[in-house]
Amino acid sequence: MTINTVAIIGLGLLGGSIGLAIKEHAPEITTTGYDRDADVRETARERRMVGTVCENAAEAVREADLVIICVPMGAMGDAAAAIAEAVQPHAIISDVGSSKQGVAETIARVLPDSTIIPAHPVAGTEQSGPEAGFASLFTNRWCILTPPADVDEAAVEALGNFWRQLGARIEIMDAEHHDLVLAVTSHIPHLIAFTIVGTASDLEDVTRSEVIKYSAGGFRDFTRIAASDPVMWRDVFLSNKSAVLEMLGRFTEDLTALQRAIRSGDGEKLHDLFSRTRAIRRSIIEEGQDDAAPDFGRDHS
Amino acid sequence: MTINTVAIIGLGLLGGSIGLAIKEHAPEITTTGYDRDADVRETARERRMVGTVCENAAEAVREADLVIICVPMGAMGDAAAAIAEAVQPHAIISDVGSSKQGVAETIARVLPDSTIIPAHPVAGTEQSGPEAGFASLFTNRWCILTPPADVDEAAVEALGNFWRQLGARIEIMDAEHHDLVLAVTSHIPHLIAFTIVGTASDLEDVTRSEVIKYSAGGFRDFTRIAASDPVMWRDVFLSNKSAVLEMLGRFTEDLTALQRAIRSGDGEKLHDLFSRTRAIRRSIIEEGQDDAAPDFGRDHS
Repeated sequence: MTINTVAIIGLGLLGGSIGLAIKEHAPEITTTGYDRDADVRETARERRMVGTVCENAAEAVREADLVIICVPMGAMGDAAAAIAEAVQPHAIISDVGSSKQGVAETIARVLPDSTIIPAHPVAGTEQSGPEAGFASLFTNRWCILTPPADVDEAAVEALGNFWRQLGARIEIMDAEHHDLVLAVTSHIPHLIAFTIVGTASDLEDVTRSEVIKYSAGGFRDFTRIAASDPVMWRDVFLSNKSAVLEMLGRFTEDLTALQRAIRSGDGEKLHDLFSRTRAIRRSIIEEGQDDAAPDFGRDHS
Repeated sequence: MTINTVAIIGLGLLGGSIGLAIKEHAPEITTTGYDRDADVRETARERRMVGTVCENAAEAVREADLVIICVPMGAMGDAAAAIAEAVQPHAIISDVGSSKQGVAETIARVLPDSTIIPAHPVAGTEQSGPEAGFASLFTNRWCILTPPADVDEAAVEALGNFWRQLGARIEIMDAEHHDLVLAVTSHIPHLIAFTIVGTASDLEDVTRSEVIKYSAGGFRDFTRIAASDPVMWRDVFLSNKSAVLEMLGRFTEDLTALQRAIRSGDGEKLHDLFSRTRAIRRSIIEEGQDDAAPDFGRDHS
């Protein structure tokens, strides 16, 4: 099973970066692309993100061995419907959505006879749109595939090899487990960041200007992920509802316990936790998932 | 009122960086320093963080016009007591603690006749100890002074000018208001980060290795501040208890409202908040409080 032609539906940060990464790492692959926003198509053309930017989705997928749907999860059903008549019988249908159970069901409903292998490259920045895309976005990042139990193994192999060509590392996982893991490592951190940034901007006794001026104390870190794409993240929380609510419950329990420790002056409990959390940071740096430079390597000169 | 000699008590990240910043920006000032940890004194000597590293606190402050106490807030009373007999009558006593009401009271109890002007440079990294100190730590960062109502204005002016020489920008604030502002911009973000990193490492259904591998989704940002000094942060929460509990209450209310929105599928409420929070990030970048580079400028090559 060889992937000679890839169609990318949705040419934002993720879709556009896939196009650029193919051009850099696998230039022998033919690429086509489509976005329902004409301005995005125009930018994708200017930046030569794919070989051919098409004027409709069906045209884009007609020759494709692999179709990657890179739209917000709430638009996934419509995107799949738009290609249903044109997609080749042998084509692999994949995506880049941040939660996997709901997406797999949505696509399967519209394309019941296709080979569907959902994927989630754990990569991105707080920016969005085709202007923000770049070829090395997936370098050394994990890409999680969640193939259904009865899928063709050769297709999984081919999709994994495709992502490896773009620089990613591959992991195969059950969709339900994926959604639980990502709820912790991504969805709850985003929810908390959105919340605290909202809380801070709604205060009456502390002005917004004070919040901004003194943000170097820690708050500004949260504003980065709270600047992420609103539509994408709305869809993440709606689509991964049960895992998010489950993990949020555990977080709230732990926060309540710390609140009680602060109220009762239990310094030992605080110190114990704060000592344990340092170790996690060290492991993330050792695993190459972040840089060891202090303060994220921010410029202090 | 001229500051010719500065004594630094506590030679960790903050104290050591003050010494290095004086050497770089105001080399005409004589500096002495002391730390109760002999290893820290040794490192401070090797790195020439101050002119003279003394073997006890009293000796360090004997000639000082300005004494800056740079120890965790729980050790502030002992540090003040150790210099009580030796400090000059005209000397300004200051500090770098992250909360100000409690600190001011603690020092005033031990040194009732001194000119006490608490200060908080809103600067730091997740690292600690003298090895982590550097001269430009305070460049373009805000330093908040919280002088008591009856303090000598000339002394406030002199301390402000001293910090300006080190590159900082000065703000004068009431101690109570400072503690509320910093609860939002620093203490609650740290508490939340410590909590979620703790929650993630305690799960049974998601392994620690999975948390680390897929941390690029957002979680790794939180691990940076959750790697901050445990003793310092224990003391922050114990010392700024009432403002922290107040702000934590507001955060929890907002989080509960979002939880309800997710449960009921209220996408509009989520989208509204997520759109508002983007604006705060833009303001922080425009104010020069953070870099505009995506992903904190992390290396993606």
